[in-house]
Amino acid sequence: MTTQMAQEIAEQPEAVSRTLDALRPLRGELAHLARGTRHVLFVARGSSDNACVYGRYLVETHAHRMAALAAPSVATHYHAEVDLSDALIVCVSQSGETREIVETLDWAASRGARTIAVTNDGASALARAADLTLITHAGRELAVPATKTYTTQLAAMAILATALAPTPPALDAELARVPKEMARLVEQREGVDAAAEHLAQSAETIVSGRGLLFGTALEVALKLEETCLRPVRGLSYADLRHGPIAVVDSEVAAVVVAAKDGPVVAGLTEVAIDLRERGATTIGIGGDATFAKACSLSVPGPDLTEAVAPLATVVPGQLMVEALARRLGLDPDSPRGLSKVTQTDAD
Amino acid sequence: MTTQMAQEIAEQPEAVSRTLDALRPLRGELAHLARGTRHVLFVARGSSDNACVYGRYLVETHAHRMAALAAPSVATHYHAEVDLSDALIVCVSQSGETREIVETLDWAASRGARTIAVTNDGASALARAADLTLITHAGRELAVPATKTYTTQLAAMAILATALAPTPPALDAELARVPKEMARLVEQREGVDAAAEHLAQSAETIVSGRGLLFGTALEVALKLEETCLRPVRGLSYADLRHGPIAVVDSEVAAVVVAAKDGPVVAGLTEVAIDLRERGATTIGIGGDATFAKACSLSVPGPDLTEAVAPLATVVPGQLMVEALARRLGLDPDSPRGLSKVTQTDAD
Repeated sequence: MTTQMAQEIAEQPEAVSRTLDALRPLRGELAHLARGTRHVLFVARGSSDNACVYGRYLVETHAHRMAALAAPSVATHYHAEVDLSDALIVCVSQSGETREIVETLDWAASRGARTIAVTNDGASALARAADLTLITHAGRELAVPATKTYTTQLAAMAILATALAPTPPALDAELARVPKEMARLVEQREGVDAAAEHLAQSAETIVSGRGLLFGTALEVALKLEETCLRPVRGLSYADLRHGPIAVVDSEVAAVVVAAKDGPVVAGLTEVAIDLRERGATTIGIGGDATFAKACSLSVPGPDLTEAVAPLATVVPGQLMVEALARRLGLDPDSPRGLSKVTQTDAD
Repeated sequence: MTTQMAQEIAEQPEAVSRTLDALRPLRGELAHLARGTRHVLFVARGSSDNACVYGRYLVETHAHRMAALAAPSVATHYHAEVDLSDALIVCVSQSGETREIVETLDWAASRGARTIAVTNDGASALARAADLTLITHAGRELAVPATKTYTTQLAAMAILATALAPTPPALDAELARVPKEMARLVEQREGVDAAAEHLAQSAETIVSGRGLLFGTALEVALKLEETCLRPVRGLSYADLRHGPIAVVDSEVAAVVVAAKDGPVVAGLTEVAIDLRERGATTIGIGGDATFAKACSLSVPGPDLTEAVAPLATVVPGQLMVEALARRLGLDPDSPRGLSKVTQTDAD
């Protein structure tokens, strides 16, 4: 029997394709709204926050604008009187109903910011409050772990960054290839079950990545934790190297996420070697041939350049999480203790 | 026999007092350098990064400026052509020799930013490269886990934020009380050994906080991990609530860090109750009376308002880490696999 989560993973190529088609025509409006602003500030929690990590790197590296992740409590609890008149605020929430995200958008607007909502529900409170809404066309998501709502958010991030870029959107040809690459990875699921088996036998899991795929690493870590109910840490390889690598030993399974090109693959390969030398089993998702060889086990990623690779590289990670949950006798569709619309404060 | 780490924890009141005295007179120069800038961007790794998390919240909530933590790879690996002409970059490194931090400062300067170094070595590469240096007067730190170099960095953050604040520095009276409160906590060490004993008996540890003390939670998590060689996750209570709380059960010891006042104590108290209801042992550091009562075990914090509380609230956390390391038969002064000056790339 196929799980709902597996079905929704398989729906992603279609959902991303639909979202890209729907949002491409909004680039002019996005560029117009952004005119006169200098900074992009992302606001989200959970998987949506991981989508924003990608958005942040893509905006900085490809649209050459300062970008950052907001601390929502600065708005919701401290009501800070920050001047945001040169900021574009991008609030991301699948449901569009997470209270603190809506509150932060309202605060930003009152402080002078232009506001964008990225949500799967065009009638939600978040969409109603924003200057402009990018609707992710994921369709209804029934499994609790976000999959197609997450990758369609990544598609929205790519549209946003290419709308802000001063040059013509050079990434469009690669973006157009994303759905096909996602479909191929879903179908082939190469290395996925072997990776799940390794994870099932490990006492401890860490996930590492860096740069444009750092958000992917965080998302795989969060999915593993929430769906498979085990503590997992997601770390950039730089932070891992700075200290926590000291606690890595043969008890650890380390998932390392990389693109096939870009300036961080070499460093990620070194980290994979270092982790193996400390006794860890390393599961490499994506990367180039040298990276794959450096890992104990390789799960191939998409044939896409780094800047758009996150949209498809997460797919084998999702498949691995779904397989692991079943292997552990858990229901991937409704993990213990989680619900679909999350509130972060009890009040 | 006293460990070096214990000795350096005890030296903090003096070191912070010295640092505040040395940096107070630089406020005019700081304000002058910041003139015309609108954003503060912090750059660091490890404990210094945790100091920057405090700096970020304090600048946003008290100096009313946008502030963010930079992703160094955007500079060092992607060489992004971001316009930083309205940004003040604050690079924090104990040694002042961490290559990626120096490189990021050079990149920021070449992109138009004004640059500040916060370092314990006024002759370091970082200090030489910056427009203005805030020297932390911690003295030489011999134990590998940062203690007095971390709290003196927090003192530098407080000086920076009060220099940027549009109003006269209202926090000065509270800041002046910090060294005495630190000294009291070192001397009394109330609840510290009981907390270490609880942690020694727990299979898994998480640390949570939020807002101005979120960086304190991250620092206690990092210290526990690096010094006691156990995987520890530091999470804001909002992120904890958003998902990872699902994996909390009676195997978990949860350390929750709070100030005696401020808008997040109530939420932290609710989280402490929630964690206990899920079976976790909760160790509360600081907070008000209601918070202390909600925790399984209370470790008193300083009698300081939230905005400056981080300088002293970490002290019982450090004492707890030092006691736990000894309890586990480890040497807190030189944890396995770490060295004092860290490089994040192998090249």
